[in-house]
Amino acid sequence: MPDVAGVGIYRTAVASDWIDYNGHLRDAYYGLIVSHAIDALMERIGLDAAYRERTSCTLYTLELHMHYLREIKADATVSADVRVLGADRKRVHAAFDLHTASHAEPAACAEVMLLHVRQSPEPRSEPFPPEVIAALSQLQESTAALPASRFGSRPIRLPVR
Amino acid sequence: MPDVAGVGIYRTAVASDWIDYNGHLRDAYYGLIVSHAIDALMERIGLDAAYRERTSCTLYTLELHMHYLREIKADATVSADVRVLGADRKRVHAAFDLHTASHAEPAACAEVMLLHVRQSPEPRSEPFPPEVIAALSQLQESTAALPASRFGSRPIRLPVR
Repeated sequence: MPDVAGVGIYRTAVASDWIDYNGHLRDAYYGLIVSHAIDALMERIGLDAAYRERTSCTLYTLELHMHYLREIKADATVSADVRVLGADRKRVHAAFDLHTASHAEPAACAEVMLLHVRQSPEPRSEPFPPEVIAALSQLQESTAALPASRFGSRPIRLPVR
Repeated sequence: MPDVAGVGIYRTAVASDWIDYNGHLRDAYYGLIVSHAIDALMERIGLDAAYRERTSCTLYTLELHMHYLREIKADATVSADVRVLGADRKRVHAAFDLHTASHAEPAACAEVMLLHVRQSPEPRSEPFPPEVIAALSQLQESTAALPASRFGSRPIRLPVR
């Protein structure tokens, strides 16, 4: 059974300069797709450019864990699904799965911790406004019934023989 | 006391198009610097372009965990230190710290798991040749006395209140 998807949030073609000497998507560009999917999540929950301009508040990424599960080739289109795993007054814990049309299983799974920051006069964590809390709760509820990913964040260790 | 550095392996200026709407290095480009530092590690242990051409073997990234500790601005030069945390017949577990000249503490800490893969006829894991095992051992021994990073891979969780 394929992993159950989260909420579709972002889609992109693979740019030719994202392909490395191994003939596939360089690891860092999986991360760039996740980064743009975070931007799309921000739009979705009301942290868009107008909000950022008005409040000088934004999200900073604190932590990222990525599992690379499958190669992505130059002609692929990658779509990102998001699940909100948790949120508090200032933080969002989210998971993103990257998919291509060729496979039911994801090509990569990422988890991130994001922090709401007021950037001026000096960067400092800041509580979310109520409408963003509400949007996060709604998004979290809409994916709450999905099973946990097999590829979540964890200590990275060599397999024991 | 600043974190003790690993072995210097890579250095780069920050490209202007790596700066995002928050006025600092976009999260994914910390990952691109780590990706290029992995390439430099490959050169260092004998998995260079000539080796890859001759053997069709390379490294695939299986997992990455990044802690973003500090903003990096447009005029910075970023240097990457590597520590080999472990290795077996086919895998390397390595840590990379990213530094800028302005601070003793790292701006980011990453851990990766890398797998040696023969790409043709079909990608398949492959044991390292003995000289690569030896180079990895030597690099691991040269940083074995360093204290463990406070920012290693781990499950990402919201802080409990």
